[in-house]
Order: sequence, then C-alpha cells, then structure tokens
Amino acid sequence: VVLCDTSHPGNVGAAARAMKTMGLSELYLVNPRCFPHPEAEWRAARASDVLARAHSCATLDEALHGVAYAVACSARSREMAVPIASARQAAARLVEIARQQTGALVFGNEASGLNTGAVNKCQLLATIPSSPQYSSLNLAAAVQVMTYEVRLAALAPAVAARSGELAPHEQVEGFFDDLERTMVEIGFLDPAYPKRLMPRLRRLFARAELEKEEVNILRGLLKALRHPVKHQ
Amino acid sequence: VVLCDTSHPGNVGAAARAMKTMGLSELYLVNPRCFPHPEAEWRAARASDVLARAHSCATLDEALHGVAYAVACSARSREMAVPIASARQAAARLVEIARQQTGALVFGNEASGLNTGAVNKCQLLATIPSSPQYSSLNLAAAVQVMTYEVRLAALAPAVAARSGELAPHEQVEGFFDDLERTMVEIGFLDPAYPKRLMPRLRRLFARAELEKEEVNILRGLLKALRHPVKHQ
Repeated sequence: VVLCDTSHPGNVGAAARAMKTMGLSELYLVNPRCFPHPEAEWRAARASDVLARAHSCATLDEALHGVAYAVACSARSREMAVPIASARQAAARLVEIARQQTGALVFGNEASGLNTGAVNKCQLLATIPSSPQYSSLNLAAAVQVMTYEVRLAALAPAVAARSGELAPHEQVEGFFDDLERTMVEIGFLDPAYPKRLMPRLRRLFARAELEKEEVNILRGLLKALRHPVKHQ
Repeated sequence: VVLCDTSHPGNVGAAARAMKTMGLSELYLVNPRCFPHPEAEWRAARASDVLARAHSCATLDEALHGVAYAVACSARSREMAVPIASARQAAARLVEIARQQTGALVFGNEASGLNTGAVNKCQLLATIPSSPQYSSLNLAAAVQVMTYEVRLAALAPAVAARSGELAPHEQVEGFFDDLERTMVEIGFLDPAYPKRLMPRLRRLFARAELEKEEVNILRGLLKALRHPVKHQ
C-alpha cells in the first residue's frame, strides 16, 4: 500500500490497522506530513509494527520501484487516464498478478486525491462505488475497502459452513407427527377442518433445515407439553 | 445502522461518513458514550446531517423496533448463536429483504463487540473475512466495509423475493417470551439451570426467518397449549 502526500497522521495509523486486519504489511509513505506522530500510533492500535516498518519515500517513482502492477485508488474519474475498474474488478486483477509479481495499491491526499500524473504512473484506476451525493470516503476507510477486496480475491471463496448435523428425514417426520397429534389433542388443530396449518408449519421448519439435536429438543418439548410437571 | 455502546465519539462520526458515502442515512445509537461531541462532528466531515438526525436509544430492542431483519456484525464467531455468513452473503440477504421491509446492521462496542444476547436478537451474524493474526477492524472501518457490501448488493439486479412478510423484531421477541414462559411453566426449562435451551431455539427460529403469520400461529399454539380444550 502506497499513501501519497497524506496530511493527517491519524489516517496513516488507521490505514496501517486496516492493512494488518487484511493480512498486508508493506506500507510506503510518499512525502508524508507529520510522520511519525503519536496520533498515528494510537490509531494503528495493534498494527504499530506495520508503522514501524513503513518505508518513507520522496517520490511515487521511488515507492513503485520494482512494482509490476499498480492500482490507483480514486473517487474522481478523469479523462485520458488509465483504464477504470470497480474496486472489486481491480482487486481481482491485482491479485492475479501479485501471485507472481509485486503489486501496489496507491492512494492520494485526503483533500485532493491523486493527481493525474500519479494516476498515469499506474496500470489501472480503481473506484469504490459510492453515493453521487457524497462520494468522498475517508482515506483509511478507502484503504480498508480496497484491502478487503484484495483479501477476498486472494482467498478461495469461503463458504459459510454450518456446524450441526442435519436431521434425517424420518426424525423430522416423527417430529411433525408429534406436533400434529399434540395440536389435535389440545384442540388447536381440528382434523375435520385442518386448513393450511400443517403445511405452513412444515414450510417454516423446512426453511430452518433442522439439525438432529434440534429435532430432539423440539420432540422433548412436545412430550413435556403433553405431560407437564408443574414447576415449583 | 445501529451502533451499540460506542466508546469513541470519533468512531460515531466516521461511521456516519462511511454510511453517507454508501447512500445510507438512518443512524441509531444505543447508549452512546460522549455524544454529541466535537470529535464526532470533525470525523463526520460532510456527513454531519446524518449525525444531526441520529436516533439515541436506551436499548437495542428500542432501536430494532419495527425491524424485520437485523444483521449482527462481529469478528468473534460464537457457539449457539444465529446463522453465520460472510459480509458479502449477509449484505445480499439483507438487501433482498430491505427491498420490502426494514433491515438493520448492528455493531457493538470497540473493545468488546456485541455481546451474545445482542447477537441472538438478530437474524444473522456477519463476519468480515480478516487476518487470523489481527482480526479487529476499527469500528468505522467495519461500518464502511459492511455498508459498501450493502450498496453493491443493492445495485445488483434483484432476485426473486419471498412471498410472506417477515415478522418485526418485537413480535419475534414476544414469541420467545411466550415460549420461555411456557417451557418454565411445564417444567421443561429450569430457570435455575437453563443450559443452552433458549439460545438453541433462538438459533433455529432465526434460521427460519419467521413470517408475521407464522409468529401468530406459533403464539396461538402456545396459548392453546397453556389452556387446552380437549378434543372430542
């Protein structure tokens, strides 16, 4: 990550924290104002190691030395600049290249962003989709979004795994039998006029994708309801 | 966006800015420390209108009144809570529902995050994929990533909506109250040794995403169970 002409030390610290949470550690500071600074340390929280190892550079060229693919991050689109992509597309492209060569994310000053000269030193201009009413993300927030997209692109798509074992068909059906019988017994379900009660409840529990242990709880609950033991 | 027990006013301001850049404007503050505060104003930049309109609430229940689908945002995964999804998956689900009903993103305190009780009042737990070495995003940075994903999901073409109307927060909580009371009454749940019964049942029904009419059926069923009329 390359930060150019950053004004507020707090943003440098917050950017370091954003990077570290996304597993990145190489920070380059081009011509930073007020760095090092206690505010940067404070905002970095437990990413002070990233700050301590940050490279200070006089120019963007120096920071990009050896970099094969640099992505300029800017809210402003501009004529005659490099190709433009969304943050997500840019991250995918960057990661593809960074598997073998060095890549960089380049960010500009808080007030003015990257100038056109700096953008044109990069291979791609990435924009974070934002509201037309207010498109100016905080610098560290933009670093967080871009590094988040880079991390997701770098990881194989993680699927949310569920922990519990699903209940087999016969257990679920046994539960529905219990439920229906109980409802008939207590007069909640009239077998002569069942309406759509059981189908509705089936739909609800089908959506829940009941786990084994959950079916046991529910059947235990129904059993207890039929044979209540008054609590003291 | 609901922020619970926020310690640093700067984070409230930065969260407001993050929201506005992603086109969101409704901010709820549950039990905020130091708000209003000049630091919040400064960090909000041109999102001070979001701060000015922020709703202060005493409890999470108050903030979630009328909300059909709440996503808890937390780095910590935990046992027995609601279903877990990635930030991207959660945003897609939230936007799908928010096309017709009210949805919420819920964030906890900077140091401790959301407690389990608060998470269990939500329908989904969203986690931002992060480095195992340092997974603690700054609060406002997490708001930026989640609202960014929500914006992208909202800009994507709509998928087929579900038919039924989801039950609002207070109805679902009312059902859980009825359920717990009934279970205590019949001796199925011992308040002195509740074990993990209620959290497990909450998790089951969170996954089911209860509809209004279903909550009515379930509460009617519980009522009938407490006052049975023997069927002939």
